Amino acid sequence: MLDTAIRNATIITAGDRYTAQIGIKNGRITAIAEDVGPAAEEIDAAGMWVMPGGIDAHVHLEQPQGEDVVMADGFESGTRSAAAGGTTMVMPFALQQKGQSLREVVEAYHAAARGKCYVDCSFHIIITDPTPSVLGQELPALVKAGYTSFKVFMTYDDMVLNDAQLLDVFDAARRERAMVMVHAEGYDAIRYMTRKLEEAGRTAPYYHAASRPESVEREATHRAISHAELTDVPIMIVHVSGREPMEQIQWAKRRGRNVYAETCPQYIALTADDLKGLNMDFEGAKYVCSPPPRDADSQTAIWEGLRDGTFDIFSSDHCPFRFEDPMGKSLERGRTSFRWVPNGIPGVETRLPLLFSEGISKGRISAERFVALTATNPARLFGMYPQKGTIAIGADADLTLWDPARKITISQSLMHHACDYTPYEGMVVTGWPVRTILRGRTIMLDGEVTGTPAGAYVDRGISGAFGGA
Amino acid sequence: MLDTAIRNATIITAGDRYTAQIGIKNGRITAIAEDVGPAAEEIDAAGMWVMPGGIDAHVHLEQPQGEDVVMADGFESGTRSAAAGGTTMVMPFALQQKGQSLREVVEAYHAAARGKCYVDCSFHIIITDPTPSVLGQELPALVKAGYTSFKVFMTYDDMVLNDAQLLDVFDAARRERAMVMVHAEGYDAIRYMTRKLEEAGRTAPYYHAASRPESVEREATHRAISHAELTDVPIMIVHVSGREPMEQIQWAKRRGRNVYAETCPQYIALTADDLKGLNMDFEGAKYVCSPPPRDADSQTAIWEGLRDGTFDIFSSDHCPFRFEDPMGKSLERGRTSFRWVPNGIPGVETRLPLLFSEGISKGRISAERFVALTATNPARLFGMYPQKGTIAIGADADLTLWDPARKITISQSLMHHACDYTPYEGMVVTGWPVRTILRGRTIMLDGEVTGTPAGAYVDRGISGAFGGA
Amino acid sequence: MLDTAIRNATIITAGDRYTAQIGIKNGRITAIAEDVGPAAEEIDAAGMWVMPGGIDAHVHLEQPQGEDVVMADGFESGTRSAAAGGTTMVMPFALQQKGQSLREVVEAYHAAARGKCYVDCSFHIIITDPTPSVLGQELPALVKAGYTSFKVFMTYDDMVLNDAQLLDVFDAARRERAMVMVHAEGYDAIRYMTRKLEEAGRTAPYYHAASRPESVEREATHRAISHAELTDVPIMIVHVSGREPMEQIQWAKRRGRNVYAETCPQYIALTADDLKGLNMDFEGAKYVCSPPPRDADSQTAIWEGLRDGTFDIFSSDHCPFRFEDPMGKSLERGRTSFRWVPNGIPGVETRLPLLFSEGISKGRISAERFVALTATNPARLFGMYPQKGTIAIGADADLTLWDPARKITISQSLMHHACDYTPYEGMVVTGWPVRTILRGRTIMLDGEVTGTPAGAYVDRGISGAFGGA
Amino acid sequence: MLDTAIRNATIITAGDRYTAQIGIKNGRITAIAEDVGPAAEEIDAAGMWVMPGGIDAHVHLEQPQGEDVVMADGFESGTRSAAAGGTTMVMPFALQQKGQSLREVVEAYHAAARGKCYVDCSFHIIITDPTPSVLGQELPALVKAGYTSFKVFMTYDDMVLNDAQLLDVFDAARRERAMVMVHAEGYDAIRYMTRKLEEAGRTAPYYHAASRPESVEREATHRAISHAELTDVPIMIVHVSGREPMEQIQWAKRRGRNVYAETCPQYIALTADDLKGLNMDFEGAKYVCSPPPRDADSQTAIWEGLRDGTFDIFSSDHCPFRFEDPMGKSLERGRTSFRWVPNGIPGVETRLPLLFSEGISKGRISAERFVALTATNPARLFGMYPQKGTIAIGADADLTLWDPARKITISQSLMHHACDYTPYEGMVVTGWPVRTILRGRTIMLDGEVTGTPAGAYVDRGISGAFGGA
Repeated sequence: MLDTAIRNATIITAGDRYTAQIGIKNGRITAIAEDVGPAAEEIDAAGMWVMPGGIDAHVHLEQPQGEDVVMADGFESGTRSAAAGGTTMVMPFALQQKGQSLREVVEAYHAAARGKCYVDCSFHIIITDPTPSVLGQELPALVKAGYTSFKVFMTYDDMVLNDAQLLDVFDAARRERAMVMVHAEGYDAIRYMTRKLEEAGRTAPYYHAASRPESVEREATHRAISHAELTDVPIMIVHVSGREPMEQIQWAKRRGRNVYAETCPQYIALTADDLKGLNMDFEGAKYVCSPPPRDADSQTAIWEGLRDGTFDIFSSDHCPFRFEDPMGKSLERGRTSFRWVPNGIPGVETRLPLLFSEGISKGRISAERFVALTATNPARLFGMYPQKGTIAIGADADLTLWDPARKITISQSLMHHACDYTPYEGMVVTGWPVRTILRGRTIMLDGEVTGTPAGAYVDRGISGAFGGA
Repeated sequence: MLDTAIRNATIITAGDRYTAQIGIKNGRITAIAEDVGPAAEEIDAAGMWVMPGGIDAHVHLEQPQGEDVVMADGFESGTRSAAAGGTTMVMPFALQQKGQSLREVVEAYHAAARGKCYVDCSFHIIITDPTPSVLGQELPALVKAGYTSFKVFMTYDDMVLNDAQLLDVFDAARRERAMVMVHAEGYDAIRYMTRKLEEAGRTAPYYHAASRPESVEREATHRAISHAELTDVPIMIVHVSGREPMEQIQWAKRRGRNVYAETCPQYIALTADDLKGLNMDFEGAKYVCSPPPRDADSQTAIWEGLRDGTFDIFSSDHCPFRFEDPMGKSLERGRTSFRWVPNGIPGVETRLPLLFSEGISKGRISAERFVALTATNPARLFGMYPQKGTIAIGADADLTLWDPARKITISQSLMHHACDYTPYEGMVVTGWPVRTILRGRTIMLDGEVTGTPAGAYVDRGISGAFGGA
Repeated sequence: MLDTAIRNATIITAGDRYTAQIGIKNGRITAIAEDVGPAAEEIDAAGMWVMPGGIDAHVHLEQPQGEDVVMADGFESGTRSAAAGGTTMVMPFALQQKGQSLREVVEAYHAAARGKCYVDCSFHIIITDPTPSVLGQELPALVKAGYTSFKVFMTYDDMVLNDAQLLDVFDAARRERAMVMVHAEGYDAIRYMTRKLEEAGRTAPYYHAASRPESVEREATHRAISHAELTDVPIMIVHVSGREPMEQIQWAKRRGRNVYAETCPQYIALTADDLKGLNMDFEGAKYVCSPPPRDADSQTAIWEGLRDGTFDIFSSDHCPFRFEDPMGKSLERGRTSFRWVPNGIPGVETRLPLLFSEGISKGRISAERFVALTATNPARLFGMYPQKGTIAIGADADLTLWDPARKITISQSLMHHACDYTPYEGMVVTGWPVRTILRGRTIMLDGEVTGTPAGAYVDRGISGAFGGA
Repeated sequence: MLDTAIRNATIITAGDRYTAQIGIKNGRITAIAEDVGPAAEEIDAAGMWVMPGGIDAHVHLEQPQGEDVVMADGFESGTRSAAAGGTTMVMPFALQQKGQSLREVVEAYHAAARGKCYVDCSFHIIITDPTPSVLGQELPALVKAGYTSFKVFMTYDDMVLNDAQLLDVFDAARRERAMVMVHAEGYDAIRYMTRKLEEAGRTAPYYHAASRPESVEREATHRAISHAELTDVPIMIVHVSGREPMEQIQWAKRRGRNVYAETCPQYIALTADDLKGLNMDFEGAKYVCSPPPRDADSQTAIWEGLRDGTFDIFSSDHCPFRFEDPMGKSLERGRTSFRWVPNGIPGVETRLPLLFSEGISKGRISAERFVALTATNPARLFGMYPQKGTIAIGADADLTLWDPARKITISQSLMHHACDYTPYEGMVVTGWPVRTILRGRTIMLDGEVTGTPAGAYVDRGISGAFGGA
């Protein structure tokens, strides 16, 4: 007998939409049928849409930030927040500090995550110190062990890789068939602009946006794509913010290059104007993230890209800092200049409702495309498909039930994160996740995250970008 | 108990790929599961790929051609050939003659098709005489009755509509939510070129291609798109042959216009050089179709378009004329000038194997994309989804079992059509349909089309282009 | 001894800017030097810019408009207005009526122009009836006789040519090396939109703009370019109004096609909003012309095109109708629907000051580019270079002296045309023509047009587009 | 009385073409007229084209190359070669060594050049060490002193600037209104490719081209343009080799960015295949320059760009190394790997004949455009117009008389440089400079360079890119 049967389900996958029952046994989907037969647990999904549980491929949890700044969410609150938002898997970053071995890094993160996760989890490794031994020995071993994706930065003092290092990482990635995620903003250009703005006394949070204009992101995107062309390796440009970097990606895709792209809720729901706060005050710090949100034209462009395949995945870039916290946004230094305001905003919980409402409910994208962007494509591109990311026989029973008609006003009081604000306060959305199921077990029901942290770590295969999927 | 169980199936849809069993009852898929339970008929699909049966949305059968030309295939041979090639549904055209009522046309085609079809079938209606009563009364009634797609021609003496007529048809289509397919080649330009070529004594079949260069197709494509923009209606540009018309479609899609596009096997497997025959002789007539195949660069472009979504569907434009037949290609007049050579080539049987082999087997497109192009998208865009076009609970059990490894040399001796040649003679393909299942019944096994013509006529809903799907 | 010496001249040509004296004898420039020696007449140009006299390649004078409409300007007032605006040559259109021979047309226009022109003049012939004898016999003879440019229309009831006719004209033009100017707007599309708007009761002058949107001009532009590609002939797209048709021209130029383009003052100084008049009233009729002015974005695009070479020439499309005249804009029928409002606005006098002020004075184009657009390129493209269009030895001494600093408020009271309004009323310009010299004789000084009409008719050679220049 | 009169001159400038006489006094053009009157020296230019003397804005002479390599030409042979090729002015580079003051550099070059130049000369300064004092003090002083252009390198061990340095130089250039020339190739990418090729044993001269593919040049071009956008300064991308970097420049120009571009003879007359020598031997070293010549498609693109204004200037990048010289191409190290082969080829003498023949004589560009590219635009963009670069009153009498019909086979025996080969050996050109006149004095006649080195150093004004011209 089945463990669970979901009856009257309007099933939506990346490719299909139809009505059926879903049968679950031992955490996996074992039957989809007009009638799956008896089951120990009954779930009636009448009126609901049943979609693959969301995979958030870009979240920062418990990541070290230097000594005077602390990230708001660790694994426990971060994954609780994810579950509440309809997400069944997160992919946090394990950050290599200079000199550290990657293996060490990974183990530290496993230690931090163990027993704390409400949803499943798998790490990308951030490479900041691509020494020959890191690239020649550690990276191959880790890929074999299921750590098949890495991230590099083209900016930030402690993380920036120069072009020679980027080329070396890309070269190793091609050899080992690892997916490299690229934070594409030009370091020197940002430093130049920051200096100019500070010299002119422009230090409010708003000038964070001016210090890294779209041309800086566009340039770095073009550069990363060129390096990937030279080394003949797929890459993913993450958190693309606007029309100009998008055009570089579209140009590369049209030429048949294996370039993938991600965008995030802040680029469809915020603009640089939000950084003005009330009259250019420090309230704007709540919206400081990198790249910064752009303008209405870029929002239009992003929607085109979500629809037409320029973007492959839609992640949160959840990177939470408390606002009223001297170790968060309100860091003393941050009030002297935007350059010290911690970069990042919370979003793991609001990612799916925002895309659902602004995308599906407003007719900009189809429900199938929503599933592709938020679950199936992340699973394919990060080597977990078809275990994760779809509703099919044999897949993990990671499911989210959506009430497509429910209207909710987003507010901090609804949030499950440990941050003290949401940048989307007051936004009204149509469509809301009412139940999250992780490997057959309901972990969220009507806004309540239930049970103990039973999320598992997921070892992954080679990315589908290498033809594996 | 199930009527049929397919065991060990590697199921491939537009969105997914996984292993399971498929259970069929009363012609529909009622279960997909690790174990669907007992069934009257057992099919073992081990080693095979199970894909949705092909839908060929563009075939010409038994279409009147004037008094001295006869089409090679009627409904019987045409649908038998379709079944043999892994296709479970064809969409032939019902051609309005000037002065005829559309209802009359439709009835004549039903009469011709009745009892003769080996696969399911549904008609597009060709409008050649868009009078106020045709557009104002007949078209609305026919859309309500399930004839939800129409075709118009921008060339050919007996069928060409001028711009005023096109605008009227598009206007009616928006009102009634009908999908309009457009044959986009410029009539006057072709006449001009034909006259110039004939004056210069260039009358061999090869000059058919020179008489309708890519710029002529590009211009008509741009014009059709502009008219669709003005009338605010979705359209489908059919049988797109090369890079230049493609660029117009891409431009329109990037601007968010609802323009859909189709391409065909001749544009990936043939070039204008094929029309040269042996030393510019009449052998080239075997490859005369419109638009003509172009060149290697256009083939490259077509592949990009199949991959990146420029093309939504892949059809055969099966339009068969016997070569050695005085009422076919070898028409006496045809030997005096290319302009009299009947336009069209057979292809309903080779459509899927060619795309499978050149696309999937050569790594140019994924198997999922193959399914989207050949089954799911046609079903969506012509108002039959999810009854047709996918493998999901409730859908018709239209399935094709493919042996992805089988190597076959295409030859006329393998064909089931009534044509006396195939333009793909000698081409070696990897991947072959070994069993075709129509609503649960096997209609082709190992190249043998079995049973009696049991294809049904399919009434259709509004095209998904109008947001219905 | 010289007839005239211009001392202290800041000479500006399409290629150069330098200070020198200009010596004139028998109407031609015979010396440019530090000191040209003694002369009968002395002109001191200190502080002035000396530029080639303007050539306005697109004006309508005394053109028949059907029985109830009369054009405001004939040759006398039209050329007086031209002289006042710094123009030394106009190119009016000689309109063929259906059935008329071209030779007859030309002679009628000569008769109308004789003895009335204050500036030099040469005709383009409008072909509305391209019969075999017109194209095969008349056109070749006229080209030989110096009528080397023709114009065709893609819209307007009495003038529209269909695609077959366009191709025939282009074909004849290639054979005879004649330049064809194309009015590119789609006839059937405009009729469709007009009908829709009238059915909806939208009949105010403003809806003139809505009845011929940019997509309609873009489509016709693409079509004309495609026909020119097929027939392998240079063409000139006239009065291009906005970004979309421009993009077609840019695309063609980038592909190396010999496509030339013209734009006009109304597309940099007006927008469709001007057609609203005061609260959508009939005042908007003052701005009705075809294509209609567009929007701010198109103005930006037009400036890019003037700068980067998308546009080769800048003409007025002077087509004047009196506003308070029952045979002009205030035609009774015109008040019932925009479709009856005579299409056209005056502009031969304001063309150069508007481009000078908005272009040179505001830093958008260089003075050299101004000369190229308004004099040198028209001369080259219409077969009059180097007799006309530049300041060089041997050229006609057609010169305009500009005061680059003079500020003038444009108003009807300043105008010399026979129209009763100017669409640019109240616009302030910087830079003003203070003296116009035609073949050595001053014909305008400080706003006063002097002397008798001494303009000559100019026989022309083959257009430079054919490599002749 | 005039010093010199040139009679029967077909004068060609960037804007005009006409017949007249030219009168010269004290080295300057003082009259252009039908008859300039008597003169001490008579030159009959019947049948010749008289064009502005060529300005070669990109030559390397006597530039230090490290201890074991020596450049073939110093000022004497280099400028003699220029004069022979119809060039009246060269702009060599004064190279700052790390630690050196710019003033020191300039003085050393003046010392080297003094008394040795057959043509006029002015220096660009290469900045390799952009310290605060160099940019903050030296650069402003030098600009004021007439050194108004600088060059930076994005590659080469001893010269490469990183992004921070580039931004600092651009920032200083905007402040001081200096023109910055950019050698745009990505240093790290070239190092990566070089290492890969050497590891694979690919060390023949041919692999020089493979080590710096077009994508590497494209990336650096995009990067330089982005930095110029950020700092809001005009720049010039020099020696652009092919379609991909060109597309970046076109994109920038279309967006209204002040980006200028240069190309060179090697990109229209050579391809990477030339580097193969005979069977991949060392003969290929004769063609090693950076960026390397590309392919036929890039040649086509370069011609489009020369025609349509993508390119503003056409220079030689003369950088001569003797082939049979152990301190030139045949350097011992160079035979072990392409990376040691001195980069550069001779071309100051063949620049104009190659462009004349391949451009004008083959109908790809007009003679006017030739003048703009080779004389007028360099003069404008480097602050010497109208003293240099045109034929106008007051300009230096720098003139070249061309026989447009003369056919010459290029060969080393005709060359006046100190190099021991020409890469264009055996190429037949139509059109040849038969007399070069520098400030009124004939310095070359029929291939013979006459007289003593009387070239002068030219102090320059601010580049026309800043609106000065």
